[in-house]
Amino acid sequence: MAAGLAGVVSTRPADLDTHGRDENHLDSVPPRAVVFAETRDDVVTTMRWAGRHNAALIPFGAGTSAEGHVVPLGGEVSLDVSRMNRLVALCPEDFRAVVQPGLTRNGLNTRAREFGLTFPVDPGADASLGGMAATNASGTTTIRYGGMRANTLALEVVLASGDVLRLGRPVRKSSSGYDLRDLFIGSAGTLGVITELTVALHPVPEEIAVLRAFFPDVAAAVAGAFAAVGTGLPIARLELLDEITAGLLAQDVPGLVPDAPALFVELHSSTAAGLATELDIAHRALLEAGASTVGTATAQAEREAIWEARHRLFWSIRRAFPGRRYLITDTAVPLSAIVEHAQVISELRADLGLDVVTTGHVGDGNIHTVVAVAEGQDAPAALFSDELVRHALRVGGTCTGEHGIGVSKRQYLAAEHGDAALWMARVKGLFDPGNVLNPGKVVGPDLLSDALAAR
Amino acid sequence: MAAGLAGVVSTRPADLDTHGRDENHLDSVPPRAVVFAETRDDVVTTMRWAGRHNAALIPFGAGTSAEGHVVPLGGEVSLDVSRMNRLVALCPEDFRAVVQPGLTRNGLNTRAREFGLTFPVDPGADASLGGMAATNASGTTTIRYGGMRANTLALEVVLASGDVLRLGRPVRKSSSGYDLRDLFIGSAGTLGVITELTVALHPVPEEIAVLRAFFPDVAAAVAGAFAAVGTGLPIARLELLDEITAGLLAQDVPGLVPDAPALFVELHSSTAAGLATELDIAHRALLEAGASTVGTATAQAEREAIWEARHRLFWSIRRAFPGRRYLITDTAVPLSAIVEHAQVISELRADLGLDVVTTGHVGDGNIHTVVAVAEGQDAPAALFSDELVRHALRVGGTCTGEHGIGVSKRQYLAAEHGDAALWMARVKGLFDPGNVLNPGKVVGPDLLSDALAAR
Ligand SMILES: Cc1cc2nc3c(=O)[nH]c(=O)nc-3n(C[C@H](O)[C@H](O)[C@H](O)COP(=O)(O)OP(=O)(O)OC[C@H]3O[C@@H](n4cnc5c(N)ncnc54)[C@H](O)[C@@H]3O)c2cc1C
Ligand SMILES: Cc1cc2nc3c(=O)[nH]c(=O)nc-3n(C[C@H](O)[C@H](O)[C@H](O)COP(=O)(O)OP(=O)(O)OC[C@H]3O[C@@H](n4cnc5c(N)ncnc54)[C@H](O)[C@@H]3O)c2cc1C
Repeated sequence: MAAGLAGVVSTRPADLDTHGRDENHLDSVPPRAVVFAETRDDVVTTMRWAGRHNAALIPFGAGTSAEGHVVPLGGEVSLDVSRMNRLVALCPEDFRAVVQPGLTRNGLNTRAREFGLTFPVDPGADASLGGMAATNASGTTTIRYGGMRANTLALEVVLASGDVLRLGRPVRKSSSGYDLRDLFIGSAGTLGVITELTVALHPVPEEIAVLRAFFPDVAAAVAGAFAAVGTGLPIARLELLDEITAGLLAQDVPGLVPDAPALFVELHSSTAAGLATELDIAHRALLEAGASTVGTATAQAEREAIWEARHRLFWSIRRAFPGRRYLITDTAVPLSAIVEHAQVISELRADLGLDVVTTGHVGDGNIHTVVAVAEGQDAPAALFSDELVRHALRVGGTCTGEHGIGVSKRQYLAAEHGDAALWMARVKGLFDPGNVLNPGKVVGPDLLSDALAAR
Repeated sequence: MAAGLAGVVSTRPADLDTHGRDENHLDSVPPRAVVFAETRDDVVTTMRWAGRHNAALIPFGAGTSAEGHVVPLGGEVSLDVSRMNRLVALCPEDFRAVVQPGLTRNGLNTRAREFGLTFPVDPGADASLGGMAATNASGTTTIRYGGMRANTLALEVVLASGDVLRLGRPVRKSSSGYDLRDLFIGSAGTLGVITELTVALHPVPEEIAVLRAFFPDVAAAVAGAFAAVGTGLPIARLELLDEITAGLLAQDVPGLVPDAPALFVELHSSTAAGLATELDIAHRALLEAGASTVGTATAQAEREAIWEARHRLFWSIRRAFPGRRYLITDTAVPLSAIVEHAQVISELRADLGLDVVTTGHVGDGNIHTVVAVAEGQDAPAALFSDELVRHALRVGGTCTGEHGIGVSKRQYLAAEHGDAALWMARVKGLFDPGNVLNPGKVVGPDLLSDALAAR
C-alpha cells in the first residue's frame, strides 16, 4: 500500500490502536494504516495517493475529540499530522504566531509567554492547534477572547485534489472575498487538511483574580452565572461545577466547599484598582443571586491550582466512577434558557436513574454533562442525551457548543439547520467530490440522498 | 415586466437614479427597475421571477457602499429591502436582537439604548444592518467589539433558487456543521438575500473617556497608535486623523488642535477607578511615543461631538475639496507594517501631486485615504490606489479592510488569495448557478474562466 505514499507509514498494532479511538465513548476501530506526515508535501502526496486509490483519509491531530471524529468507520487511513509541530514564526509586535498544525496549545503558550503573550483558546485537553481549528474548539476563556474562529487569522489547507490554498490574511480585519477560512474552521477534516495556521496572541493580563461562589443547588448556581453576565463586567472565565464535580475538585484544591455547586468567575484587568472594584461588583452580584459563600483567589498558585484541577476533571470523573463508559454531551442554549436547561438535566437524571455530572462554560450558555454509563444503561443514557439535545434545539440552542458533530451528532444536523444541512452536504461535494476526507463525519453525500429521498 | 413580481415596483427616474449609484466614485448607471420588497415572500417571489426571466438582481440596503457594490453593470433590477425595517424582537436577557435587513444601525441603537444596550458595529454611515452583514462592515469600535462577523449570530437568507435558509443559531457558540453564516457575511448579495438577522447587543459601558493626542506628523501618530495597542489596555476606539482631517474636525469640535495629525483613543471601563488608571497608562504611552499634547474628554457631550464630527468627515472632505471626484481606499496591514504603510502614502501623495487625506481605524491596521481627484488626475489617482494596495499585499495585508471587493477591487482578488479565489468562484457557482445575484461583483464565473484560461 505504501507505494507512492509519503511520510512514515505504520501498521504497528499500537499505532493502529491509538488512531482508532478518541475521547468519545465509541469502541476503537483500527484504521488500515497510519501515515505520519512530516511536511506539507507529505500531506499533498498522501492526498493524491488517496484520490488515485479511492482510499479514505482521516486527519489526526492529538486524538482528544469528544465526538468520535477520528474513529474510522471502516478501512480509512489515518493521516497523522502531529509530527508537523513547529512554531514557524512568532511576531510579538503583530500579536500573532504562525504554527504547524501538530503544535499543541500548551506548546504554543510556553513559547508565547516568553513575550508576555498568550493564546487564550483553552479546551482543557492539550489538543493540537490544527485539531482545534478543525473542530472550532473553544473553552473556559471564550466568553472574553472568543474561540478558534475569533483567534485564527489564516489557514493553509490541502484539498482532496492536492491543491494547496491559503485562506485569510494575517491582518486584524478584511472584507476581501468570501470567507472560506471560517468554512474550513469547524469542518473536522472533511473539506481539507490544515497544514499551517496563523493565530492571534493576546497580552497576558496584568491583574487576575478568581471568585469561587458556592450555591445551594445547580439551578441557583446557573442563575448566579446569569446575574454575573448581566453585570456587564469583562468576565474572562465563568465555569459551573455541580456538587459532584465540586466535590472531586475539593480533593485537589484547598479552600473549596465539597458538595456545594460552584461557580468560578475569573476577572482580567489592566489595573489593580479596576480589578478591586470589579471583584467587588461581581461579589455582590453573586451574593444577591443566592450564593451562600463567595471567596477570592488572587495568588497565582491558587488560581492555577483551580484551573489545573478543572482540566483534570474528566479524568477525576473517570476515577470516581471506574469501569463505566462515559457519554459526554455539549449543548448550548441562549442565556435566558439556561436555568430551564439545567432543570431538564436534573429531572432527566432523576427519572432515568443515571449517574450524571454537570459542568459547563456557562457564561456562554454551554453546558457539558458526563453520564457515567453502568452496565445495561446504554438505552437510558442515549435517551438522556437525546432529550437534552432536543430541549436545547427547542429553545433555539445547538446540539454542540464546541465539540462538533463528529459521528454522534449527525442525526441532529437537519433538525438544527433545516435545509441549510443540505447545502452543507453540497459544499462537501464541491470540495471533496470523491468523499475521500473523513467520510461519514459531519455531513456527506449520504445526508444529501437521505434528505432528497425524504422529500 | 412586473407580472409575477411582488412588492412595489418602480421605474420612476428618481428611484432609478438613487439606485444607480453608491458612495463610490463610479458614475450612476440606472437599474432596469426598482422592486421595493416589503416581506420575505416578496423577496422569494422576486427571486423566482428573476430565475424564470433570466434577469439579474442587485440587493439594495441603504446604498452607502464605498466600492460600487450596488451600481448596475447593465440591465439589473434593484431589489431594495429598506422597507423591511422592523425590529422583530429585542431580548435584553440574551443580549440580542432580531431585525429585518432594512433596519439601520442607528434605528437599532435607539431601541437598544432603552435597555442599556448597544449594537457596537459603527461604519460611520447609517447603513442598513443587512447591507452591513453583506459587506462584513466594521468600524471605529471593531478593535474592542469586533465587526459584523463577531456580532451576527444568525441569518435568514433567500437563495437564487427561492429556497429560504436559516444559518447559525441564536447562541453564543456552536460547532454544529459548516459555517455557512460567515460565508454569506461579506458576500455582498452575490450568494443570497439576507431577510433577517439575529445580532448581538452589548451593555452600554459604565465609564467612557476619549484621549485626543496630537503629533508632529502622521508617521509619529501611527507610531503612537502602535504604542497604544502595545499597552494591552482594552481600547474601544483608536482613530487616526491626518493634519487635513484634524483641521476639518477642528472647525466643528472645540479643543482640537488644527493642522496637527491626531489620534483619538476611547477607553471603556466598568469602573471609574479602572478608567482613571487606564487613562493614565494610555496618556503616558502616547507622550512617550512622541505626542506633543494629550487631552481627555470625559463629558458625554464632548465625546459625542468628536464622533459625530468624525462621522461627518467624508462630507467635510467633500466641502473642503468641492467639485472633485472622491476615490476612497481601504487597505489593512499587519500592525508592524503600519508605519511603513503610512510612509508609502505620503511618498505617493508627494510624487503624484494629489490631494489625499488619510484617516483610519488604525488600531486594526486599517487605513482609509480619500483622494480628491481634480480634472485630469484620473490616471495618477488610480495609480495611487493601485500602488497602495500592492504595498498592502506585499506586507501580508488585504486590499480591503472593511468596504469589500465590490467592483473596484476585483482585480486584486487573485493577487490576494491565489487559487482560493478560484474556489470562491466555484462556491458562487454552487449557490447561484444562473449568476442572477449581483453579477460581476466580488467573484463570478468570469473570474473562473479568466483564471482557467491563464493556466
Ligand atoms: C477532557 C476533555 C475536555 C475537553 N474540553 C473541551 C472544551 O472545553 N472545548 C472544546 O472545544 N473541546 C473540548 N474537548 C474536545 C477536544 O479536546 C477538542 O475537540 C479538540 O479541539 C480536538 O483537537 P485534537 O488535536 O485532539 O483533534 P483530533 O481529535 O485529533 O481531531 C478532531 C477532528 O479534527 C480533524 N483534524 C485534526 N487535525 C486536523 C488537521 N490538521 N486538518 C484538518 N482536520 C484535522 C480530525 O479529522 C477530526 O475530525 C475536550 C476533550 C477532552 C478529552
Ligand atoms: C462616509 C462613509 C463612511 C464609511 N465608513 C465605513 C466604515 O468605517 N466601515 C465600513 O465597513 N464601511 C464604511 N462605509 C461603507 C458602507 O457604509 C458599508 O459598506 C455599509 O455596510 C453598506 O451598507 P448599506 O446598507 O448601505 O448597503 P448597500 O450599499 O445598500 O449594499 C452594499 C452591498 O450589500 C448588498 N446588500 C445590501 N443589503 C443586502 C441584503 N439584505 N441581503 C444581501 N445583500 C445585501 C448589496 O447588494 C451590495 O452588494 C462608509 C461609507 C461612507 C459613505
